[in-house]
Amino acid sequence: MKTVIIGGIAGGLSAASQIKREDHGAQVVVLEKSGDVSYAACGMPYNLFYKDKPVEDLYAMSLEAIRKERGIDYRLHNEVVTIDPLRKEVTVVDHQLSREYRESYDYLVYATGNQPNRLTLPGFDDADVFYFKTLDDTRLVKSIIYEKSPSNVILIGSGYTNLELVDVLYNMKIKPVILEKSATILPSFAEEIRAKVLEKLEEKGIKLHTNVDITEKQGSVVRTTTRDFEAGMVVVSIGVRPNTALFSSAGGELGVGGAVKVDRFLRTNLPDVFAAGDCAEHYVRQLGRNGYMPLGPVANKQGRLAGSNIVNSNAMKEFYGIDQTAVFKFFDLTVATSGLSERQLQENGANYVKVYVDTSTRGAFPGGGTMRVLLLFEEGTGLLLGGQMIGQDVVAKRLDVLATGIYKQMTVFELAELDLSYSPLYSPVWDPLLIAANKAIKYV
Amino acid sequence: MKTVIIGGIAGGLSAASQIKREDHGAQVVVLEKSGDVSYAACGMPYNLFYKDKPVEDLYAMSLEAIRKERGIDYRLHNEVVTIDPLRKEVTVVDHQLSREYRESYDYLVYATGNQPNRLTLPGFDDADVFYFKTLDDTRLVKSIIYEKSPSNVILIGSGYTNLELVDVLYNMKIKPVILEKSATILPSFAEEIRAKVLEKLEEKGIKLHTNVDITEKQGSVVRTTTRDFEAGMVVVSIGVRPNTALFSSAGGELGVGGAVKVDRFLRTNLPDVFAAGDCAEHYVRQLGRNGYMPLGPVANKQGRLAGSNIVNSNAMKEFYGIDQTAVFKFFDLTVATSGLSERQLQENGANYVKVYVDTSTRGAFPGGGTMRVLLLFEEGTGLLLGGQMIGQDVVAKRLDVLATGIYKQMTVFELAELDLSYSPLYSPVWDPLLIAANKAIKYV
Repeated sequence: MKTVIIGGIAGGLSAASQIKREDHGAQVVVLEKSGDVSYAACGMPYNLFYKDKPVEDLYAMSLEAIRKERGIDYRLHNEVVTIDPLRKEVTVVDHQLSREYRESYDYLVYATGNQPNRLTLPGFDDADVFYFKTLDDTRLVKSIIYEKSPSNVILIGSGYTNLELVDVLYNMKIKPVILEKSATILPSFAEEIRAKVLEKLEEKGIKLHTNVDITEKQGSVVRTTTRDFEAGMVVVSIGVRPNTALFSSAGGELGVGGAVKVDRFLRTNLPDVFAAGDCAEHYVRQLGRNGYMPLGPVANKQGRLAGSNIVNSNAMKEFYGIDQTAVFKFFDLTVATSGLSERQLQENGANYVKVYVDTSTRGAFPGGGTMRVLLLFEEGTGLLLGGQMIGQDVVAKRLDVLATGIYKQMTVFELAELDLSYSPLYSPVWDPLLIAANKAIKYV
Repeated sequence: MKTVIIGGIAGGLSAASQIKREDHGAQVVVLEKSGDVSYAACGMPYNLFYKDKPVEDLYAMSLEAIRKERGIDYRLHNEVVTIDPLRKEVTVVDHQLSREYRESYDYLVYATGNQPNRLTLPGFDDADVFYFKTLDDTRLVKSIIYEKSPSNVILIGSGYTNLELVDVLYNMKIKPVILEKSATILPSFAEEIRAKVLEKLEEKGIKLHTNVDITEKQGSVVRTTTRDFEAGMVVVSIGVRPNTALFSSAGGELGVGGAVKVDRFLRTNLPDVFAAGDCAEHYVRQLGRNGYMPLGPVANKQGRLAGSNIVNSNAMKEFYGIDQTAVFKFFDLTVATSGLSERQLQENGANYVKVYVDTSTRGAFPGGGTMRVLLLFEEGTGLLLGGQMIGQDVVAKRLDVLATGIYKQMTVFELAELDLSYSPLYSPVWDPLLIAANKAIKYV
């Protein structure tokens, strides 16, 4: 059995590794068009901080280990240019050897990831405009930072990635200014969480301009309909779109958000072609349908399942889905969410209640801080629908309790009965989650 | 309606506060025999470290706030000496005014806590032998440490409290030696977790002697059947027993571990007498019966429920119980458990499987470490029965995911499907819990 995998970063390498894990004799060819093996993309902002830490430290493993330890035929600089689903083969350009060749497959995994949306305005193709998406982007940004020492930066867009960059660059003494087209930031968070992020921006003296309509860039000046901004570098992060051109050219069907349409087994409409990761749809458990939420863990999980389903084609398993859990760091704050957002609840016409509490994170002991916990739950039943948290100390892994509760369809009454770990070094005697739940049950 | 509460620390103050919260006009008298209001007992070891931090910093709130803000008639140095369940009154000695008086009640909450087991061997009544249980004990130990600067300490017993003290005292340059009667330490932990604690003791050069049979203490020398030990101070922590003398003298019935027998509503056999906290039994959900596990959170929860049931005597709620969750810090390690222990599983003849994994806690980023996750689950079904973790970084609040899963009767298959928060600053892309679950499903 021979599997060809297009794209070798998160989903692709996971699929390849799983096939070899379950069927040692299987032939697996990974065709990766860049010069980088699988890497931890979410770690890129933090690598900038360390001048002497090569970006290659973000590699999941070395090319040699992928080849020798895992037995995968992993080829860098090999770009697939067409898929022929009838002949079951792909055409590949090897950019290093400057040759084109064909590779046949029994199974194909499409794992091409996504790409940043680009600003198609005058001047935004300049060399000092960056899309912080790949390891190559990271190399470029890092070289600018350490070679040109810019004193300030314009960040266009205010999603997770740019907020993480704001944090990192500010701490590197590169003053950030954020330009956002919308009226607000972080639309998937409730305003009570968002408010804390805005407070932090203000505390740090970082300017956020919303409702900004950019017109062009001229040299170091970004012009908008109302005023000009100037900075030594510009980072644009205004959303992503799945890489699907190759797939759709071959007759592949697209779905939510223009991503590769997959069934619960991660099969596409093309025979024996699976898709995984940032190029594909992701099943959202609470909605009971596919959505599009490109994040590292889901890419890894989907890749692993696609690989497993290829090996076990007579006993395939459904992808169990996601609960839209996400987290990012913002200065001393951790910001995290799981489950449905308020916006999604409104879109679905849900009868929901929102409560939040502000609490300390661990009594009066060093290392503690404060935390806001926000719960979204169904009116009448108390079914937990979503949870968001922001604060110092342990937020991310406390949020996981809510993610677990959402997965298990827990009510706020049940949440209030949890026996959570307590020592004053880790928690107040009533954990913030219990305090929030005890408030919530009064409003069911 | 008048409620008298005997004992005003965790369960007692919680009950009092809840009554006033739900029925502002209710009369609540708290009779506390010591001179201290409710305090965070679990914080006592860590207070030792700070010479200038008064132990009163551990108070949950001030006497004035309890009286004025909460409207509770809280009386210090007032010891109840008899309960008359027929006349529904208690006899009280006010040690400050040296007078005895009677106080009638409609409802009584018995919340007297527990006391340390004592070593009844020659020499162990000396002034340099400490039982680290109350705020007064903490004052004594603290005065010895800062006035006499002992260079070493003998800790008798190796439970959580003594291990926390080992950590604190070692860091204060007071060299600890541990003497343990049993063959092993931490019997409620699996040997794979225990091994990590033992490794840490060895790494720090701290001597643990097991199977030790102490015969007497003479001056600074503790004699055993095999050899002598010498130290500037001795701390004994060999278990606790519930304070029940007053209750049983009044005809009260005792249950598991000699604690006050309570039904699910926290009622005792005496009419209109409830019990809560360290003096009472605690319902263990997984066993479906009462056990005895005196910890801060359960005392607070039981106190709150007892108070609520007194106010709502026609619509009482059952105590939802505990899952035996516990955590303690030991140097750079956090050690945590939830659910049934291996010993309990064996005692109950359960068909269980045990797996564990060693993982990193957050990829290659600063602040991470390693962690051992151990899962206990039912053979055949994969039902999660218990979870234990030890490691650096965020252990306590990760353990809470297992506590949540145990509460919701989750299987290891479900655990593997959780959508846990990921950013390289907080977790590897496969969270340690997912890695453990993915291993576990192979052994169901």
